[in-house]
Amino acid sequence: MPPPPTPISSSPHSLANRLARVAWGIVQATLFRFSPRPLHAWRRFLLRLFGARIHRTAHVYPTARIWAPWNLTLHEHACAGDLTDLYCVAPITIGPRSTVSHYSFLCAASHDFEHPDHPLTTAPITLGANVWLAADVFVAPGVTIADGVVVGARSSVFSSLTEPWTLYAGSPARPVRRRVMPAAAPT
Amino acid sequence: MPPPPTPISSSPHSLANRLARVAWGIVQATLFRFSPRPLHAWRRFLLRLFGARIHRTAHVYPTARIWAPWNLTLHEHACAGDLTDLYCVAPITIGPRSTVSHYSFLCAASHDFEHPDHPLTTAPITLGANVWLAADVFVAPGVTIADGVVVGARSSVFSSLTEPWTLYAGSPARPVRRRVMPAAAPT
Amino acid sequence: MPPPPTPISSSPHSLANRLARVAWGIVQATLFRFSPRPLHAWRRFLLRLFGARIHRTAHVYPTARIWAPWNLTLHEHACAGDLTDLYCVAPITIGPRSTVSHYSFLCAASHDFEHPDHPLTTAPITLGANVWLAADVFVAPGVTIADGVVVGARSSVFSSLTEPWTLYAGSPARPVRRRVMPAAAPT
Repeated sequence: MPPPPTPISSSPHSLANRLARVAWGIVQATLFRFSPRPLHAWRRFLLRLFGARIHRTAHVYPTARIWAPWNLTLHEHACAGDLTDLYCVAPITIGPRSTVSHYSFLCAASHDFEHPDHPLTTAPITLGANVWLAADVFVAPGVTIADGVVVGARSSVFSSLTEPWTLYAGSPARPVRRRVMPAAAPT
Repeated sequence: MPPPPTPISSSPHSLANRLARVAWGIVQATLFRFSPRPLHAWRRFLLRLFGARIHRTAHVYPTARIWAPWNLTLHEHACAGDLTDLYCVAPITIGPRSTVSHYSFLCAASHDFEHPDHPLTTAPITLGANVWLAADVFVAPGVTIADGVVVGARSSVFSSLTEPWTLYAGSPARPVRRRVMPAAAPT
Repeated sequence: MPPPPTPISSSPHSLANRLARVAWGIVQATLFRFSPRPLHAWRRFLLRLFGARIHRTAHVYPTARIWAPWNLTLHEHACAGDLTDLYCVAPITIGPRSTVSHYSFLCAASHDFEHPDHPLTTAPITLGANVWLAADVFVAPGVTIADGVVVGARSSVFSSLTEPWTLYAGSPARPVRRRVMPAAAPT
């Protein structure tokens, strides 16, 4: 019989990390969460106070949950919708013009369940440009998503999605078809 | 390479719609959400103030999320449970004696991700009579569900369920077997 | 055509049960939910006041949702994470050194949808020792999970998982491989 692993209990995080998260937790539960929806500039200001890199055109909605702003990067016109969960124990990057919709959960941490202490493991999540995660999409630690990918509602992404401009769906998410954009209009 | 689409940013909704949702948002976050559970009549009153059509025997629980009550119709003995999300950007109708259970998400909006501006798209969701959506069921825009259908917990419904009195389950939801009701007792 | 079933409406629970849940609901929404994260002893105290059996080394995080503490048992070093839902209409037991992660939903109740009154049905959920349910796992009523099982993120468990020290994943969850623990180090 295998030896019983030690429980997940004592924090693997530094004291500075934990204090910063306490402070952010208070800000998030008050000034951030109850801010009027159109006040994107105010929420960007709060996130930047805690170290986030957020382009001045990016949008984060009031009920988005962010674990540690200092691990969060949003490029121009990136968007994290209401009720999303950006569990950025490791860095999470949302590329230009990419959108994360309701209930989607970007989960940048796990545990090594075959180590006797099952320690925390973390790995960055990176969304390229022009990505859309539809509603209630799960993204596992270490996943990179190529430019122009759309992930259908309720899909789960356990490994990187490498085909650009492709619609993926399902659990695990698999390619469904090309995402065909119209040719650029001459201007 | 396809041209980058314009980000989802400026609201596709009218100013009147947005003002009404601000007002409803305040009511929902206060008078509605913190109402005692048995006060169904009070919540029906609040929803009707904002244009919902709700039969006097229908039940909506305090933590149900409703996007726009004016797009919501509940027939006799219809029920939207706690922690459900009725994202009625287009009309959502819950038929007589139909129940939507915990965490189920009726999502009446999407985006056209192959249009350069990926505009909002919406389509009504309609549940017939005697339907039961069990826990954490997702329903996509435009879906109609036939009378007597049961959808198993954690299923995702991406197209209409047309076989009445049938149990569906899975993602996407598929028919599992007939739902067999006992013959009516003579009284 | 089958006869229409009676709607789910009048409570199947006793008046004492309902009053106790009102009291617990108030405590949960205030003293419990807004307690600082490290105050595990305080939350254990509150849960025990309402009849829970919780070992002094077990952890329940502030945003865990518990339906009825008197149906909850947590053994040594058991852990219910933030945003978990322990819907203990029937008894839920979390064994020694077992962890339930974010968004996982242990659902100990259902309805008999082929009975004209579709009455509430309940069945206990039991997790053995050294179990880990990763993020957003659903567990259906009546399920027992063997010692040392890991259930992957986003899986749904509709029947008991009987192979100990095995990784399960998917919907429905199926065995993926053995969970191999290192031999105990000589000390």
